[in-house]
Amino acid sequence: MPEHIYKKVELVGSSKDGVEDAIEGAIARAAETLRNLDWFEVKEIRGNIRDGKPEYYQVTLSVGFRVMDAEDMQKG
Amino acid sequence: MPEHIYKKVELVGSSKDGVEDAIEGAIARAAETLRNLDWFEVKEIRGNIRDGKPEYYQVTLSVGFRVMDAEDMQKG
Amino acid sequence: MPEHIYKKVELVGSSKDGVEDAIEGAIARAAETLRNLDWFEVKEIRGNIRDGKPEYYQVTLSVGFRVMDAEDMQKG
Amino acid sequence: MPEHIYKKVELVGSSKDGVEDAIEGAIARAAETLRNLDWFEVKEIRGNIRDGKPEYYQVTLSVGFRVMDAEDMQKG
Amino acid sequence: MPEHIYKKVELVGSSKDGVEDAIEGAIARAAETLRNLDWFEVKEIRGNIRDGKPEYYQVTLSVGFRVMDAEDMQKG
Amino acid sequence: MPEHIYKKVELVGSSKDGVEDAIEGAIARAAETLRNLDWFEVKEIRGNIRDGKPEYYQVTLSVGFRVMDAEDMQKG
Amino acid sequence: MPEHIYKKVELVGSSKDGVEDAIEGAIARAAETLRNLDWFEVKEIRGNIRDGKPEYYQVTLSVGFRVMDAEDMQKG
Amino acid sequence: MPEHIYKKVELVGSSKDGVEDAIEGAIARAAETLRNLDWFEVKEIRGNIRDGKPEYYQVTLSVGFRVMDAEDMQKG
Amino acid sequence: MPEHIYKKVELVGSSKDGVEDAIEGAIARAAETLRNLDWFEVKEIRGNIRDGKPEYYQVTLSVGFRVMDAEDMQKG
Amino acid sequence: MPEHIYKKVELVGSSKDGVEDAIEGAIARAAETLRNLDWFEVKEIRGNIRDGKPEYYQVTLSVGFRVMDAEDMQKG
Amino acid sequence: MPEHIYKKVELVGSSKDGVEDAIEGAIARAAETLRNLDWFEVKEIRGNIRDGKPEYYQVTLSVGFRVMDAEDMQKG
Amino acid sequence: MPEHIYKKVELVGSSKDGVEDAIEGAIARAAETLRNLDWFEVKEIRGNIRDGKPEYYQVTLSVGFRVMDAEDMQKG
Repeated sequence: MPEHIYKKVELVGSSKDGVEDAIEGAIARAAETLRNLDWFEVKEIRGNIRDGKPEYYQVTLSVGFRVMDAEDMQKG
Repeated sequence: MPEHIYKKVELVGSSKDGVEDAIEGAIARAAETLRNLDWFEVKEIRGNIRDGKPEYYQVTLSVGFRVMDAEDMQKG
Repeated sequence: MPEHIYKKVELVGSSKDGVEDAIEGAIARAAETLRNLDWFEVKEIRGNIRDGKPEYYQVTLSVGFRVMDAEDMQKG
Repeated sequence: MPEHIYKKVELVGSSKDGVEDAIEGAIARAAETLRNLDWFEVKEIRGNIRDGKPEYYQVTLSVGFRVMDAEDMQKG
Repeated sequence: MPEHIYKKVELVGSSKDGVEDAIEGAIARAAETLRNLDWFEVKEIRGNIRDGKPEYYQVTLSVGFRVMDAEDMQKG
Repeated sequence: MPEHIYKKVELVGSSKDGVEDAIEGAIARAAETLRNLDWFEVKEIRGNIRDGKPEYYQVTLSVGFRVMDAEDMQKG
Repeated sequence: MPEHIYKKVELVGSSKDGVEDAIEGAIARAAETLRNLDWFEVKEIRGNIRDGKPEYYQVTLSVGFRVMDAEDMQKG
Repeated sequence: MPEHIYKKVELVGSSKDGVEDAIEGAIARAAETLRNLDWFEVKEIRGNIRDGKPEYYQVTLSVGFRVMDAEDMQKG
Repeated sequence: MPEHIYKKVELVGSSKDGVEDAIEGAIARAAETLRNLDWFEVKEIRGNIRDGKPEYYQVTLSVGFRVMDAEDMQKG
Repeated sequence: MPEHIYKKVELVGSSKDGVEDAIEGAIARAAETLRNLDWFEVKEIRGNIRDGKPEYYQVTLSVGFRVMDAEDMQKG
Repeated sequence: MPEHIYKKVELVGSSKDGVEDAIEGAIARAAETLRNLDWFEVKEIRGNIRDGKPEYYQVTLSVGFRVMDAEDMQKG
Repeated sequence: MPEHIYKKVELVGSSKDGVEDAIEGAIARAAETLRNLDWFEVKEIRGNIRDGKPEYYQVTLSVGFRVMDAEDMQKG
């Protein structure tokens, strides 16, 4: 019986509201295309500044998903 | 006069609500057992995904507390 | 035509409310003195603990701003 | 004459048998889809525990392959 | 409903046979004392040399287990 | 209004001429396939040696591009 | 014959006199509770400042000791 | 006789021409304001992309200079 | 009530006598100019060699101080 | 009485069989030339791929040996 | 049939002209003494500053070469 | 005129007295064999423990020296 294989893709989510919102946006977008999303790891938190305030929080994520077939391997 | 000694333990808190809530949960649990909790350092932020959303935020913390006696050294 | 030069300063913001609030406080304070703040990078998230809870979230930031003249280089 | 370009993808192989078996499984799966696999780098070795033993070794790999055309760039 | 809390302990297993055997030895020893062992992460692989050969493989692991009550927090 | 999402892919460019030429070659190749390339980060500089000289400079890049739709997510 | 298992605990020693004194204080305190202390690794050197001078040197150590039985695993 | 003290500032130079030109631009700008510039360390090489090519190389430098008096400490 | 903001500056102290003396020299010099110095972190220990001996120990420090007003932000 | 001095050399072993075999090959080769080999540390695990399988495991090691005299210092 | 063993040595090349020239100088010098140079990895880019300009670019390289016999192991 | 080339070797000094003494011992030993020692960088501080005290401080150094001719390249 073959054992599980996962692939990880690196995404950057952005949000005016904060870190969790940027994470959720990136994962929601990935979920439109990729099946079997399984976990995420935060790699970097940064953002741009406008008028003395953070304008966008930008969170770099590594997102792991299970590869079931050749289509999963190519996607993501 | 002996100078202070601290011990650090590594915990992972999890929360459906976000990073701060996961941190607070882990520290609250530690405080039930350990005296003199003093500071924490975030080591990693990750989480699992279900239905295209983060289900649990998982935050790895290093938590420092002051060691007053042998019991403190063994606990934690 | 001279190309842009940026300088980065390292700040630590603190907040009882959470990570984003600590970031925003540090950037707001920097903006009182420094022109042309452009971006921030989170370097460390930590905090002190009192009564079994985080008292202050302490977030170390690297903040970049554009250097227009000698005054900008000295400030920050 | 154009010079070589490579792309790297991050995969996680898992195996009940050990580190090398997890690596080989991930590479075999990638080879079903991607041409010109060239090298791998081990990024992380971890695993889950069941009944006091490692159940699965989970090895994160970065796998490099040569990009010959647009199809290679999109795949992987 | 309270959410899960985990604790991580750092162990070094040693084996004349290789990396996986050193990992399994350390986890087996931990399992005699700690409930709910959940995962491990390899932090370092090294060893001592005798007569021109590795004598012992020494593998440093971070081992995570779920904390159910105060006894779990103190153990490990 | 949805906020921006980016994806990062890891490429290795090679050049007999030097670091910048290897970077430009990798980005030019990526631009044949991927829309909205936005930034790059150098991860590693290495090369092979022949006859006492670097033959190819090999530069590993992380390249970020904006994800507009499902096709962008799958490509890259 | 079972092979050796070690556990590592993270301690912070502090001293007004310097780095070695902070290390020795932390190890002496650990030795009151833990048997078979074997080695230490310096992880961080820092300190607080008062009146324009370092007041305490604070040295974070990882201390390894051999685990002989269940009591050793729980202690430390 | 007092021994030397140095201060390090972090700058980002940008150039359309390449890495060395970005370094030289940042140092030249610093030299208009700071005395006794002594050495630099490259921390990061990145850039933005326009029309399938690097538009600006952006090189982050740590620049060290000798502190002779209070004015030097404040500048930079 | 506004919460505390800190700034960190990077200094290199040098001493013929050793690590602690290099640290103390850098902090003493900083204290002539900067108010409210609060803590230091050792980033690097190195030195130059003359006649088969270390001539100067060179210790790179990150020094944190509390920012009370615009003058503090500009200094340091 | 003079205290021990060690030197470390960096080697890469390769093997078709796996990680431990690559380590053992590199150490055996070093032992033909160097006396007093004492310990090794694994720095990197990678390999090349041929026909959808790892062809050679390549393991980078740092190998430490005790320096007894000038000949030991030059060798290795 | 014995498998390949490589050794890596760390060199620093310096050049007034730039990064590639410093790399080429260090490799050319190594090639006068060492056979079978195979690859290099850039570890650090820094330099000294004179009169507001980089005077020397200093590039630290790890250079790998194949070890064919005892003489190769001792050299380099 | 050829520009300077340096080589770096990694040594571990040990001392019962402390960090500086371990550094000085390793450099003194190297100076018996190698010409033109120029600088050192501390890579790791650790030690073994006996009877609840550090017995030996073990300091890993990278030591740089200028390569003047083929003999220098082979030594060290």
